[in-house]
Amino acid sequence: SPGTGAPRPTSPTCSQYFFFSSSDLLPAKNGEEPTMQFLLEVMDILTNYVRKTFDRSTKVLDFHHPHQLLEGMEGFNLELSDQPESLEQILVDCRDTLKYGVRTGHPRFFNQLSSGLDIIGLAGEWLTSTANTNMFTYEIAPVFVLMEQLTLKKMREMIGWPNGEGDGLFSPGGAISNMYSVMVARYKYFPEVKTKGMSAAPRLVLFTSEHSHYSITKAGAALGFGKENVILLSTDERGRVIPADLEAKIISVKQKGYHPLFVNATAGTTVYGAFDPINEIADICEKYNLWLHVDGAWGGGLLMSRQHRHKLNGVERANSVTWNPHKMMGVPLQCSAILVREKGILQGCNSMCAGYLFQPDKQYDVTYDTGDKAIQCGRHVDIFKFWLMWKAKGTTGFEEHIDRCLELSEYLYNKIKDREGYEMVFEGQPQHTNVCFWYIPPGLRDMPPGDERRERLHKVAPKIKAMMMESGTTMVGYQPQGNKVNFFRMVVSNHAVTRSDIDFLIDEIERLGNDL
Amino acid sequence: SPGTGAPRPTSPTCSQYFFFSSSDLLPAKNGEEPTMQFLLEVMDILTNYVRKTFDRSTKVLDFHHPHQLLEGMEGFNLELSDQPESLEQILVDCRDTLKYGVRTGHPRFFNQLSSGLDIIGLAGEWLTSTANTNMFTYEIAPVFVLMEQLTLKKMREMIGWPNGEGDGLFSPGGAISNMYSVMVARYKYFPEVKTKGMSAAPRLVLFTSEHSHYSITKAGAALGFGKENVILLSTDERGRVIPADLEAKIISVKQKGYHPLFVNATAGTTVYGAFDPINEIADICEKYNLWLHVDGAWGGGLLMSRQHRHKLNGVERANSVTWNPHKMMGVPLQCSAILVREKGILQGCNSMCAGYLFQPDKQYDVTYDTGDKAIQCGRHVDIFKFWLMWKAKGTTGFEEHIDRCLELSEYLYNKIKDREGYEMVFEGQPQHTNVCFWYIPPGLRDMPPGDERRERLHKVAPKIKAMMMESGTTMVGYQPQGNKVNFFRMVVSNHAVTRSDIDFLIDEIERLGNDL
Repeated sequence: SPGTGAPRPTSPTCSQYFFFSSSDLLPAKNGEEPTMQFLLEVMDILTNYVRKTFDRSTKVLDFHHPHQLLEGMEGFNLELSDQPESLEQILVDCRDTLKYGVRTGHPRFFNQLSSGLDIIGLAGEWLTSTANTNMFTYEIAPVFVLMEQLTLKKMREMIGWPNGEGDGLFSPGGAISNMYSVMVARYKYFPEVKTKGMSAAPRLVLFTSEHSHYSITKAGAALGFGKENVILLSTDERGRVIPADLEAKIISVKQKGYHPLFVNATAGTTVYGAFDPINEIADICEKYNLWLHVDGAWGGGLLMSRQHRHKLNGVERANSVTWNPHKMMGVPLQCSAILVREKGILQGCNSMCAGYLFQPDKQYDVTYDTGDKAIQCGRHVDIFKFWLMWKAKGTTGFEEHIDRCLELSEYLYNKIKDREGYEMVFEGQPQHTNVCFWYIPPGLRDMPPGDERRERLHKVAPKIKAMMMESGTTMVGYQPQGNKVNFFRMVVSNHAVTRSDIDFLIDEIERLGNDL
Repeated sequence: SPGTGAPRPTSPTCSQYFFFSSSDLLPAKNGEEPTMQFLLEVMDILTNYVRKTFDRSTKVLDFHHPHQLLEGMEGFNLELSDQPESLEQILVDCRDTLKYGVRTGHPRFFNQLSSGLDIIGLAGEWLTSTANTNMFTYEIAPVFVLMEQLTLKKMREMIGWPNGEGDGLFSPGGAISNMYSVMVARYKYFPEVKTKGMSAAPRLVLFTSEHSHYSITKAGAALGFGKENVILLSTDERGRVIPADLEAKIISVKQKGYHPLFVNATAGTTVYGAFDPINEIADICEKYNLWLHVDGAWGGGLLMSRQHRHKLNGVERANSVTWNPHKMMGVPLQCSAILVREKGILQGCNSMCAGYLFQPDKQYDVTYDTGDKAIQCGRHVDIFKFWLMWKAKGTTGFEEHIDRCLELSEYLYNKIKDREGYEMVFEGQPQHTNVCFWYIPPGLRDMPPGDERRERLHKVAPKIKAMMMESGTTMVGYQPQGNKVNFFRMVVSNHAVTRSDIDFLIDEIERLGNDL
């Protein structure tokens, strides 16, 4: 029944939405026409948003504080109520949700490792939503299960594992993929932990770079190792693990009677974009019989580029690899893979053989029911958009994308490395698209080094960032690192970015930061 | 540049797709028109799919074996290649992906706890894909972060926690939500495990029903407790935990010197749809000082119904609750909440304070940056579709949906409970929409009880299911449970289902099973 008591004609037009509510849509009787009309209206809102996202005259965001949005903007009220709203209002809500959000696909959004709005990927995600199914069995996701298998195999081939053999899963993000790697490593060396718990193993120690992503330590805490058994490795000036430090720390741990289990080498650190020397780390892992994981959440995409894949040399020696197509490859969120060299070990580690899902007496080959390998039960279909993009671009299209992003960051690096008012956070050309730098406002340029300058410089990036967000012109990340005060971290993964956008960012930093 | 060398006009029309490739789409120069055209074509494919999903003359699925799909159907090849495909082919791939999939929104798809295709939810998910952002900070998801907070608060109010106070997160599915509950319980009683690992605590024991979802045991294995420290509780004939058995097992564990930590009470078990007696279990948890979690992944939705919420009486005494709107409430996949009564404990348990994301010196109130509470880093936006559905239906709309689904399963129960050829798996009216039954083909009806009859009966459900899938007419789940041979588990969560669909299922079972 309609949201109001007003009479309505049988064939609705757009302006008649006011009279309709969600209960008039399918599966309601005569619901087909209002449903199609409503979905076309939604599509109109979405395609307009897409169009404007690529238009540089559109703002990246229309910033409001939490209390402002909570108090309610004109016509946009976040509160939920007992009574239904009209479809008219639902369409307004959709428009406003986009209006007050952040355009992560805008060519001047540089804030996160994942950015951009790939049209094919978007279409793929719309289709995935429409199919609304679940990855746990071939029974209800036959096509997606096979796409996942074929795609993971291609990824393993690119890693360099013989014939692309091995195993893998798409998981809800790099942190969970990294967590899988720790779980599988523990199962490989101490399978009895699955049954008996951590007390069945000696004190197990994990190693990862001080520059690595926090998810390794988070996994250590969650899985029962404890944060203090996740040992942080020293890095060189450019953020790469020093292999000798790894070896020294393994020896020290062994001397204490603990058991070194696992090393994470990062291919593309979050802040510096550094690539740890995988081959040297692999030598040490082999010598001491440790599991080697490569966290290529950010840098894995470089395997697609003949020019840049050498930065991951040795990755084929890893026991497991995390690789997030939703970062460097521009696939819509979420799309993260955990890849494992040894077949069957994910299943061994995680299987619980639930009878209601994984019946052995189905009519098809049940080895395609892959759900029991996961720590999830239901699992979102993350594969389709990626598969579709791969089809549409080919491997060569991803390669072009990656080479182009790296060229753009080289352009930025060359532009600012000797420019007045800039200091680079580390020496030399970045390995990935990460360009880390301080902008020094004119008023600080003549200050002597020391605490006062440090304190003032520490406040520059947050202030510029706040002004950027309030004017809505661009967004770029900043953070401190170790004893280094706040600096900007520029990254490029959006295929819409051009040199003019890089120039714009620098102009904007100087415009906003000039008087600080 | 186009996929072929053929000349092309500047203003494309549909039939000219043959000449276009993904590199002609935005952000390409003059990409706007092909982009809009392409997205409209995709939308046409999707709206056709939606329309047909609700049409009972459409098959639920067009079954093929894995090897058939892998060999390639006409014009549909799953293999990925180095070279791009034309947009024309991409559209064919989209059509074929849907053609060979399973229509989980079809009124005769009863295979899973999550089913149905809600039009508002679908629109919400399309918008989410288009916004393509990430939940970790207010900075890049201001509207979604606030929607999540408001919605979780409403859910906590429905649970009955004073003023809806507490904490929570949307997570990638019920298994992960249940895993959070175990992590948080451990942190509450043994916070030092976060730093020192499981060796800092005594041997910790978890309790859950033998009918509960396998994710509790899976969490026990993953988090380092070990499967054998997850103790399964006995249930009554209808699948509900026997409180006396819980108390006896707690005492026994304590006598061995282990530490009872956590009890999971299930509100709506996967197979029987049983609701554990929460109040009696809560009494025991209070007496022995254990964490009480309620897994309402399946049954949580009943809190929306004044008629049925009494089945969760006592849920307000839980320390944490899992509730999946993507199951009983018809929200598209994935949408699962973990709700925690004590504020701040999720943060305490999981925070790692990554400097590059959670800068304390932002210009807005950073308590809205909720990402550090999660075990994920990036987190998919699961809230919007649910928020939009709540707006569109109101609480009363969800209530109607739930009452209706339960009425339909009561209709099924009444129809078959005394019908010739049917045996109910448990006595009495089901508590949830789960109706569990054996169909006994005429040839088995006169057989005496015993192994031979059991063996033959065990094969009936799989055979009928295989025939259903091959004819594509309907889908319903089956499984064994304990010493009970394969039986059908019927569930209803799709708002498109009517009594005629229930009748159809029964007719179909009898048609296919008559000669077995």
